[in-house]
Amino acid sequence: MTKRNAIVGQSGGPTAVINASLCGVIQKCLSPDNRIEKIYGMIHGIEGFLKDWYMDLGAELSPKERMRLRITPAAYLGSCRYKLPEDLNDAIYPLLFTKFDELNIGYFFYIGGNDSMDTVSKLSRYAAQNGSDIRFVGIPKTIDNDLILTDHTPGFGSAAKYVSATVREIVLDSSVYHQKSVTIIELMGRHTGWLTAAAALSRRQQGDNPALIYLPEIPFSLEQFAKDVERELQQRHCLVVCVSEGLTDSEGTFLCEYSEQKLDFFLQKSPSVLNNSPTGKNLLDNFGHKMLTGCGRVLERFIRERFGVKVRSVDLNVSQRCSGILASMTDIEEAEKAGQMGVQYALNGETGIMAAFLRKADIKTYELAFCSVDVNMVCNQEKTVPLSWISREGNDVTKAYIDYALPLIQGNVCPPMQNGLPEYLYRKINFS
Amino acid sequence: MTKRNAIVGQSGGPTAVINASLCGVIQKCLSPDNRIEKIYGMIHGIEGFLKDWYMDLGAELSPKERMRLRITPAAYLGSCRYKLPEDLNDAIYPLLFTKFDELNIGYFFYIGGNDSMDTVSKLSRYAAQNGSDIRFVGIPKTIDNDLILTDHTPGFGSAAKYVSATVREIVLDSSVYHQKSVTIIELMGRHTGWLTAAAALSRRQQGDNPALIYLPEIPFSLEQFAKDVERELQQRHCLVVCVSEGLTDSEGTFLCEYSEQKLDFFLQKSPSVLNNSPTGKNLLDNFGHKMLTGCGRVLERFIRERFGVKVRSVDLNVSQRCSGILASMTDIEEAEKAGQMGVQYALNGETGIMAAFLRKADIKTYELAFCSVDVNMVCNQEKTVPLSWISREGNDVTKAYIDYALPLIQGNVCPPMQNGLPEYLYRKINFS
Repeated sequence: MTKRNAIVGQSGGPTAVINASLCGVIQKCLSPDNRIEKIYGMIHGIEGFLKDWYMDLGAELSPKERMRLRITPAAYLGSCRYKLPEDLNDAIYPLLFTKFDELNIGYFFYIGGNDSMDTVSKLSRYAAQNGSDIRFVGIPKTIDNDLILTDHTPGFGSAAKYVSATVREIVLDSSVYHQKSVTIIELMGRHTGWLTAAAALSRRQQGDNPALIYLPEIPFSLEQFAKDVERELQQRHCLVVCVSEGLTDSEGTFLCEYSEQKLDFFLQKSPSVLNNSPTGKNLLDNFGHKMLTGCGRVLERFIRERFGVKVRSVDLNVSQRCSGILASMTDIEEAEKAGQMGVQYALNGETGIMAAFLRKADIKTYELAFCSVDVNMVCNQEKTVPLSWISREGNDVTKAYIDYALPLIQGNVCPPMQNGLPEYLYRKINFS
Repeated sequence: MTKRNAIVGQSGGPTAVINASLCGVIQKCLSPDNRIEKIYGMIHGIEGFLKDWYMDLGAELSPKERMRLRITPAAYLGSCRYKLPEDLNDAIYPLLFTKFDELNIGYFFYIGGNDSMDTVSKLSRYAAQNGSDIRFVGIPKTIDNDLILTDHTPGFGSAAKYVSATVREIVLDSSVYHQKSVTIIELMGRHTGWLTAAAALSRRQQGDNPALIYLPEIPFSLEQFAKDVERELQQRHCLVVCVSEGLTDSEGTFLCEYSEQKLDFFLQKSPSVLNNSPTGKNLLDNFGHKMLTGCGRVLERFIRERFGVKVRSVDLNVSQRCSGILASMTDIEEAEKAGQMGVQYALNGETGIMAAFLRKADIKTYELAFCSVDVNMVCNQEKTVPLSWISREGNDVTKAYIDYALPLIQGNVCPPMQNGLPEYLYRKINFS
């Protein structure tokens, strides 16, 4: 049987383990017992490939470099956010397939989230319509954990570990002064609360901070929030609250889009504010904002003016997706395996599929199995946190979430250090 | 000789290693060959001690817990920001010394920064005036590295390691897309640039991002900044800029206090903006800000409107001072030793002093010696980054800074993990 070549790309936002999946794809493609000759890497995904940006990963990476790649965060090959046209008659498709044929490509792997699975779906459907035998396989990746038909998504475990470890440290930090204080930690999650919920993993025992956690799955009410905060502040000096960046109210307005006027309305509704605080106008002048960016900042201002306590907001920002130091070894191993399994499915003749995770039913002994799922079912769908995993009051998660997420953050990475810092793998060749 | 007791407190902002110094004090106090019977810990510093909040550290902490304390970030004993009265005739002083005598205190240790050294100074001066033989010793601590008469300060090395490792990861993250982009990282340092400068340690070779670093020691000019950014964007796709939160312009105005009007003035000064962009009024409406908080955000908006490129700002926030995972083992060991040396100086009969670091001259083989310095010389002073360590253009640091800082971030902490997260030491007893 003549050998064919394979090509792999990375797409969408970076994670701590997207390179571990790349590593898995390379390893499996280069194993001597299979039918793949060369494994090419697209630089900056399908967008870069259209400009003929690619590299021969087998030739370029030594085994030692591959091991370094495995624990390097962000996307080694570079990424893109490029949506292929809906119309499969668009001229871009024959152009792409001509390029595939020139490189003798038999296997195409794309590591990414929803949008990337859309790319795999379109290319596999075009291939089916046009008699191409290239196999198209998606390898899942997203810190948001919002892909359906898979127990969880590579990248989520490491982001969850970063969030829970960092929240634990901020809780320690916030408790050093003996003064009523509120700390608001804003976490990633525009439409789903998987990652914000990971803040609950940071608690050592019941009652520990963060005492309140709000996810975008539940409409957010400032009035209910004020009641929650008031109750907690009666019980503790230091209150830590975790919120998803994507909190929306019952009208569907993002909290981070609240205008000063809207916030003012909520503040003036409360009689205690009218009695104890300067008027809204003065408060505005102090702040000088018309609109606040980030729901953490909106809530920071709300609490300061409503309760008059010391308050600060912290946005964990991009480190949630690019921290290599706090990556989960479980996540790295699973991401690598997902890459290997993706290649195996393609070698088995499957196409238009995504490598997915199945958790064995007994949660006491976490164990993962793999399967392939129809990529057309996955793309452009979104998995939210089950409402039964959110507390009845909408301000916490239940034990079911903890049982689900805790196995995913186990195991540590010890990256090789040089000059006191992790020594990651950098792409030598610059394409531009 | 009759044994006396010792008392130790923590004061000011938390660091990753203030507990390592506490650990050093406890170890040395409890070593059987000296004249100290018990080592008490003040809860929430001198302020808590005034309310009789203290604990017996020898009785409460097992040797195993002490080892865990050594790598626990933030302040185990709790902290305060409490300034003793300037007037040594104030009634608070005899009250404090009565409490010291009741506990048979012979040795007083205070771990903190400038303000804490002020406390040590006042108490030692009061003791001298009133015939008390209690010895008062300061143990330095601050991530800002701004204490004089010491080569560096415990806490700085760990914060610098956190900053450089995190900047390295953000640089990786920012380079995944093939699109002109600017990432601004705002770092701690209100008056001194020691910590922001640590971003330079993240570079692997010359030319690496962060390409521009601005410290508060040099007056900041938006016009010069625009020229720097323009030049860099001609040479690279992805530009990462690090700035101190305390950047001020030549008139002494904090950049983070710039009004929308002021920023607008700078934007309209540039002809290219007037030609290529909507008018200032429209830009304002898009943004809706009157005043921006955080100089990173001011610069983010400036760059977006001036250059029209993708731009984001990241504020590393409190994790800079409370990250235990990225603590420097060199820093932990030196902080511990500083605590031990402080006790030794007190046992030697010294008072009104601070334990300080002396670096041996040959920078090729980093080695530290210890000495005691007059605490009255240290308090209320501020050490800035030498101007000769800042590049002539004011947008980078020189090799002299790298040589100074690199030894301080060496060595890693491997905290014991439980359920995937570091298991730190928590105070069991709640004082309030």
